[in-house]
Amino acid sequence: MGEFEVIQRYFANSGRHRSDTLLGVGDDGAVLQLRDGYDLVVTTDTMVAGTHFFPDVDPRALGHKLVAVNISDLAAMGAEPAWLSLAMTLPKVDDEWIKAFAAAFSETADYYNCQLVGGDTTRGPLTLSVVAKGQVPRGKMLSRSGAKVGDYVYVTGTLGDAALGLRLCQGQVEVSKKHSAHILQRFHYPTARVALGQALRTTASSAMDLSDGLYSDIQHLLRRSQVGVSLDIDKLPLSQALRDSCDHTTAIALALSGGEDYELLFTVPENKRGTLDVLLSPYGVPVTCIGRITGVAGKLELKAGNQPFAYEHHGFEHFV
Amino acid sequence: MGEFEVIQRYFANSGRHRSDTLLGVGDDGAVLQLRDGYDLVVTTDTMVAGTHFFPDVDPRALGHKLVAVNISDLAAMGAEPAWLSLAMTLPKVDDEWIKAFAAAFSETADYYNCQLVGGDTTRGPLTLSVVAKGQVPRGKMLSRSGAKVGDYVYVTGTLGDAALGLRLCQGQVEVSKKHSAHILQRFHYPTARVALGQALRTTASSAMDLSDGLYSDIQHLLRRSQVGVSLDIDKLPLSQALRDSCDHTTAIALALSGGEDYELLFTVPENKRGTLDVLLSPYGVPVTCIGRITGVAGKLELKAGNQPFAYEHHGFEHFV
Repeated sequence: MGEFEVIQRYFANSGRHRSDTLLGVGDDGAVLQLRDGYDLVVTTDTMVAGTHFFPDVDPRALGHKLVAVNISDLAAMGAEPAWLSLAMTLPKVDDEWIKAFAAAFSETADYYNCQLVGGDTTRGPLTLSVVAKGQVPRGKMLSRSGAKVGDYVYVTGTLGDAALGLRLCQGQVEVSKKHSAHILQRFHYPTARVALGQALRTTASSAMDLSDGLYSDIQHLLRRSQVGVSLDIDKLPLSQALRDSCDHTTAIALALSGGEDYELLFTVPENKRGTLDVLLSPYGVPVTCIGRITGVAGKLELKAGNQPFAYEHHGFEHFV
Repeated sequence: MGEFEVIQRYFANSGRHRSDTLLGVGDDGAVLQLRDGYDLVVTTDTMVAGTHFFPDVDPRALGHKLVAVNISDLAAMGAEPAWLSLAMTLPKVDDEWIKAFAAAFSETADYYNCQLVGGDTTRGPLTLSVVAKGQVPRGKMLSRSGAKVGDYVYVTGTLGDAALGLRLCQGQVEVSKKHSAHILQRFHYPTARVALGQALRTTASSAMDLSDGLYSDIQHLLRRSQVGVSLDIDKLPLSQALRDSCDHTTAIALALSGGEDYELLFTVPENKRGTLDVLLSPYGVPVTCIGRITGVAGKLELKAGNQPFAYEHHGFEHFV
């Protein structure tokens, strides 16, 4: 089966057809019509077998996650997702595997109102690369560079669950039956905070998504905004499942340094804090203030309440 | 060195900065401003070490070719290239290698007036995936689906040189000193026919680029346009280097079935043939009529002058 046929056979006839897709899969490229007065937002993320996922992972989980993590980047910019391209490098064409993967990919793309408009299949070690495209009203995008001294720092959802899920899959931890489904769901089936990201366009001064872990990701925001931050580790939102499954020190380490939460981190100026609760209440996603932006460029300060908190960060290495 | 740093260090500060790039490398995604009344064109192509290139290929040749083959797809759609994203999977961070690769990548992107606006680096077997983005005036894109019965079929440049270059690198053929530089140039440093593709917007009824070889590629066009074609193998444009380096049968086989020429194939209605020469003369790229579209959907007929030409196609498999 040639390169053309894999995408054509497994993907082209499933999923959503958007009316602003003038030309989709099957030509030299796709032709897409942006809304007047909107800018294009483009993000890219690659997942490699053995580095980002277990080679024997359920292809449905993989198809879902590949879409969700890419759309999470669009969410962090306040964009409305629209189109996906998929570059697949496959060691062989395994009909059952690709069918399951493609079904989950299409379902998740549908969920986010996205259409697959291009692809490329090559033979080689299993590598999946997605480019997600979305649109944002001109000048309204969220970026990492707008945080100002005094802004409040927020995160959505809870932190550390996905990292616990990874350790559960690796057999490094035990999680009670009551919590394991939730924890595995958080690891295998992350949710991109799309509607919430769009709602933040008028309120947040900066935003990003958390893929490599709060401790490491926030430093990119500090660098781009040329500010520092003081975080209160007592405020970190931890799920009941995480609290029940490990001691407090481990829970904090997973929340700070564990990756793949795909929650949003954002900053809000003091004068917009009041509108935040009202604005976000329809979305049903908890939002927690965990600290404040400071003037010491690049400095990440951790406190437990009013006390300094000593912490040794070990970077998230996907899995080794 | 983390994922962020590779793109940031080697790519972000080199190359062109377009004024319509509102946000480039270094955030969750790029934000790009399309021209009013233009549609977005997106193409993707992946190159895998051992499948699409020799693992020990000169990184400068690789950087050039990766950009050129992606831009060739934009050219085939009549689009003006603008932005590139690069997903790199690298087995290790080899400073010299990445520097040489990045320099050639940036130089070639510059040449086509393109800016690198996003990237992702992961660890794994060497795989390079580019998404190229361009723009085309609304409704003016070229596609594979507009060929009509009676249209004339053209190709740009000459065919088969890149396939000969591949065989030369593999030590399967000998090429005289006089020709070898040209042949290797054609294989390692293909040219995307960008200006010519844009000039064809008003004249061609369909277009595509030739990456896997004329015999195999044209069938996609036949399928999308629901037509057939009759090609005259005596008309195939063969370079002097190709003619001098192998017998006629081999030269024809390389021109028909050899890949990686990255020339444009396009069709022109009879009433627009007259304007074609005038239109294309400024570009200095030879254009040759090699056949005509027929009504027998899907049928590829080969003739030598007026006689049927028996030919057994062996698909281009990059290299095995």
